[in-house]
Amino acid sequence: MNQPAVSEKVKTASLDALYALIHNDLKKVDALILDRVKSEIPLIHDIARHIVASGGKRIRPALTLISAQLCEYQGQRHIALAAAVEFIHTATLLHDDVVDESKLRRGLATANELFGNKASVLVGDFLLSQAFQIMVGDGSLKALKILSDASAVISKGEVMQLMTEGQPETTIENYLQVISSKTAVLFAAACELGAVISGHDTLEEDLREFGIYIGIAFQLVDDVLDYAADEKVLGKSVGDDFHEGKITLPVILAYNAGTREEKAFWARTLSELEQKPGDFEEALALMQKHGAIAQTITMAERYCSKARQCLSAFPPGKAKSAMLDIADFCTSRVY
Amino acid sequence: MNQPAVSEKVKTASLDALYALIHNDLKKVDALILDRVKSEIPLIHDIARHIVASGGKRIRPALTLISAQLCEYQGQRHIALAAAVEFIHTATLLHDDVVDESKLRRGLATANELFGNKASVLVGDFLLSQAFQIMVGDGSLKALKILSDASAVISKGEVMQLMTEGQPETTIENYLQVISSKTAVLFAAACELGAVISGHDTLEEDLREFGIYIGIAFQLVDDVLDYAADEKVLGKSVGDDFHEGKITLPVILAYNAGTREEKAFWARTLSELEQKPGDFEEALALMQKHGAIAQTITMAERYCSKARQCLSAFPPGKAKSAMLDIADFCTSRVY
Repeated sequence: MNQPAVSEKVKTASLDALYALIHNDLKKVDALILDRVKSEIPLIHDIARHIVASGGKRIRPALTLISAQLCEYQGQRHIALAAAVEFIHTATLLHDDVVDESKLRRGLATANELFGNKASVLVGDFLLSQAFQIMVGDGSLKALKILSDASAVISKGEVMQLMTEGQPETTIENYLQVISSKTAVLFAAACELGAVISGHDTLEEDLREFGIYIGIAFQLVDDVLDYAADEKVLGKSVGDDFHEGKITLPVILAYNAGTREEKAFWARTLSELEQKPGDFEEALALMQKHGAIAQTITMAERYCSKARQCLSAFPPGKAKSAMLDIADFCTSRVY
Repeated sequence: MNQPAVSEKVKTASLDALYALIHNDLKKVDALILDRVKSEIPLIHDIARHIVASGGKRIRPALTLISAQLCEYQGQRHIALAAAVEFIHTATLLHDDVVDESKLRRGLATANELFGNKASVLVGDFLLSQAFQIMVGDGSLKALKILSDASAVISKGEVMQLMTEGQPETTIENYLQVISSKTAVLFAAACELGAVISGHDTLEEDLREFGIYIGIAFQLVDDVLDYAADEKVLGKSVGDDFHEGKITLPVILAYNAGTREEKAFWARTLSELEQKPGDFEEALALMQKHGAIAQTITMAERYCSKARQCLSAFPPGKAKSAMLDIADFCTSRVY
């Protein structure tokens, strides 16, 4: 029996409760971010504003803010650290743009397309340096260690991903290591920081694991969306991963289950990047045929419920409930 | 009267005494660097080894090591911090390669040419993250502040440089700000760290200023070498800056002194990047005609002697003498 088609599942997860809880904090984070990218150098100002101010959901800084609330943190350090987390993320986006030549991100043209490769690399470096300056300003070596370790793992993950390009025979294990590194580790660090600044050492591990699991779920769904998103709704263009020969779980699953002829299709389109009109639709059809999209979503949901379990030690409350919403949101984006 | 031609001046500066003094320390720095770039990920290992192990003069870490000696530092922290300085430098090199498409660096093919743009960006990020992990391991917030501030200024300098590309009407002041930021600030930080770890707060400013001045001198000479180097001796290819439309002091001086016809030549070759065979030779001839190369070297020598003055408070000795050798070396490379 075939897996149910994506559109058959209906599920919603709203982040409204989350954003209501962190509204004021997030405004402060945004103000700090904008203040930091104010620059006497027009190019820095323009690109940084473009990438930072274009918003997105600010999901990573939101994790720091709500984790701090969950740990009953009283203070202001979460603002700066949330901003540092977002800066690390946006620096990665800019460097990823150089690499991936994505056409759309957050519904706007990529910085790369507007400003060029050079500027994307260098302004990415600028944003990363802002993150470190903010952390140094915070003054906690523990927070610095968490974020510099995250930064190191992210760069490793990005390189590992580059090495799997064009190789549909990549193992699922290898793929999971890539997305844990390039995506989930920053989610984990963002959550862990909430416990660190609260001084609740015993909660660090739970929050870190929560972050890892939702990060993996988030990326799995992101990889599905690159084939199956509704561009008008998500403002994310479909097909970038395919056109770049990027190997994601839907590809790996379809490849593994494929006939010899299908394997040759994947080799031609992804390894040799010889793509012609209709190939993307064919790729999507092969994924649907083998249930690769649905299996990927199922795996995301499994990570999502692992994440929920990590919060079991926390007493019920608004902050916990908002964090569970984030976990649900990470998988519900597909529907 | 014309300025004397470069070749008429004969001057030598040897770094032999310096390297004899820091020999053991530099071996430890190299071992730490190589240990850090050991990676289970072949691409990281290959590129990092390529860029790091290809050596160069290790002038920046050498500055940290010899500054520490000058401040009579007893301990091992200078090793790690010198490695962090070198990692920041090599990360910049890799990101600069993406940008500049230089053909030769240190006599070897650039990493970019061997491994591609993507890999250069991402492995550069990896090297930068190693720098921050090392600094966090050192545990001094003061050292972290110095190097994260340096990193922020470097990225600004790189962006400023990008913005002057193709604009020979760039002011000398603007150019000096670019090279102070992109080059001299890391020289300054490298020197300052020697005082910081020694606990000699009063010496920090002198060493920092020394670093700024030799950094500016070093870059001025580097910009001369891009037009007038002997490729066989320095393993540095000539003409990269010209081919990329990069604006350096020799260009600015020749442009400012140029006739209307000459200004049109610079506009065509550097602003519009319409270059044909013989243009590079013509550019060099115009520089010689207006004494632009000699004036640039003179300016470098002026910064070099400012640097020497910064050390006047230090008692004579081997370490001081080796640092003065570095100052001389920064300008004597041209001859």
